[in-house]
Amino acid sequence: MGLNSYSFRVRYAETDQMGVVYHGNYTQYFEMGRVEWLRAMGITYKSMEDNGIMLPVISLHIDYKKSALYDDLLTVHTHLKSKPMVKIEFDYTLTNESGELLATANIVLAFMDKKTGRPIKCPDYILEKLDT
Amino acid sequence: MGLNSYSFRVRYAETDQMGVVYHGNYTQYFEMGRVEWLRAMGITYKSMEDNGIMLPVISLHIDYKKSALYDDLLTVHTHLKSKPMVKIEFDYTLTNESGELLATANIVLAFMDKKTGRPIKCPDYILEKLDT
Amino acid sequence: MGLNSYSFRVRYAETDQMGVVYHGNYTQYFEMGRVEWLRAMGITYKSMEDNGIMLPVISLHIDYKKSALYDDLLTVHTHLKSKPMVKIEFDYTLTNESGELLATANIVLAFMDKKTGRPIKCPDYILEKLDT
Amino acid sequence: MGLNSYSFRVRYAETDQMGVVYHGNYTQYFEMGRVEWLRAMGITYKSMEDNGIMLPVISLHIDYKKSALYDDLLTVHTHLKSKPMVKIEFDYTLTNESGELLATANIVLAFMDKKTGRPIKCPDYILEKLDT
Repeated sequence: MGLNSYSFRVRYAETDQMGVVYHGNYTQYFEMGRVEWLRAMGITYKSMEDNGIMLPVISLHIDYKKSALYDDLLTVHTHLKSKPMVKIEFDYTLTNESGELLATANIVLAFMDKKTGRPIKCPDYILEKLDT
Repeated sequence: MGLNSYSFRVRYAETDQMGVVYHGNYTQYFEMGRVEWLRAMGITYKSMEDNGIMLPVISLHIDYKKSALYDDLLTVHTHLKSKPMVKIEFDYTLTNESGELLATANIVLAFMDKKTGRPIKCPDYILEKLDT
Repeated sequence: MGLNSYSFRVRYAETDQMGVVYHGNYTQYFEMGRVEWLRAMGITYKSMEDNGIMLPVISLHIDYKKSALYDDLLTVHTHLKSKPMVKIEFDYTLTNESGELLATANIVLAFMDKKTGRPIKCPDYILEKLDT
Repeated sequence: MGLNSYSFRVRYAETDQMGVVYHGNYTQYFEMGRVEWLRAMGITYKSMEDNGIMLPVISLHIDYKKSALYDDLLTVHTHLKSKPMVKIEFDYTLTNESGELLATANIVLAFMDKKTGRPIKCPDYILEKLDT
């Protein structure tokens, strides 16, 4: 379970005129992090949605330490904080190719029934993967 | 029918490290243009979608003449090119507060049935508005 | 000083396939909030940058209460939390046309010298505006 | 010289409430295409900018054939159309994992001196790479 690391390059479109990645775009990096964390367990978020479960973000906290730059090869490290119940919580770190810490983050998402819009428990097939 | 003009400010997030608006973000400006063109006729694109009609873009052409800058007050001028059938075609110009021409564009969208995904004719309630 | 409210419409591009505004795009709304808060005092962020001062975000916290929807007329309420020193801290609420609370946020930015990249104090011309 | 192919996954943030990739986000895909085309020749766009050359887009044409979907593994095929002079022109195709054609595009960029903002010729070190 624990940790997944995923690397990708900063796109030009993600920068702003400060010459660094726009702070709001980090949310996309952390999203890729948890999607690839799931995929590494053999689950796709796409299939979860196709099966009627959505995972809206309910809380987001990012601390920016150092700027991310265009064309940087970044790595997002995704760490499940505790056993998911109706919510799932991740801690993240974002590093560049030199291993410098660019940002830390904590993001909480809620399992939601797509049809009813109501909160539901974490599906068993995810809990089972986490136990192994 | 003819022309609608809509003004708005450039957001910081829309710039890139070239110090100008990222070229891809103009697509959002033209989208606001046609949405406000519709609203000026008393129709919202939102209600169209709620009534089962989607309008995907099928062709996009933009010529960039002069850079748009952060905090600029831009105006998008939206002009319906011809009577819509299964497609609807708009010509656009984008100007800044000094009246300088920043870009021209031509965008074609298709009326589509949301359920079937199939092309349909422009709804009568739009054609009627255009005739008045 | 205190509070500024700024209203704007949700763009189609800001939604995701969950049918609501993508959580990361709220960062642009809060950015518009503080830019308009400054403008209401007679200062533009653009002129600050032109004068060599940048304001990178160093900490971001958003709590999502209720979804923002396409074409919603939203209002971002920007509140300066305390007298700015080397940092400036804002509390935000985001509401829709019905007055429903969609999100709360706290964002901290740092005053930075554009040339040296070093932290600096809040410029006097801002502090003076805050005193009046 | 000719052709470069680059694959990547569609991010959730790139979709809109139509349930497909927002049409404006294709511009980022084509940008990755030409950046990786350059990198395959041993040149980074980042180093070009560091050496005082910018490449703004001056014309963009996209034809949308079929929707790109969340989590799709897409491939952008970048083809240099002719020997670059003061402009450089690329033809693109975008395909999904099944090999279906999603979009074609033609994008023209101009070589520009970063300091003067004036058009310049394609740098010799690029022309030399193209000749080999």
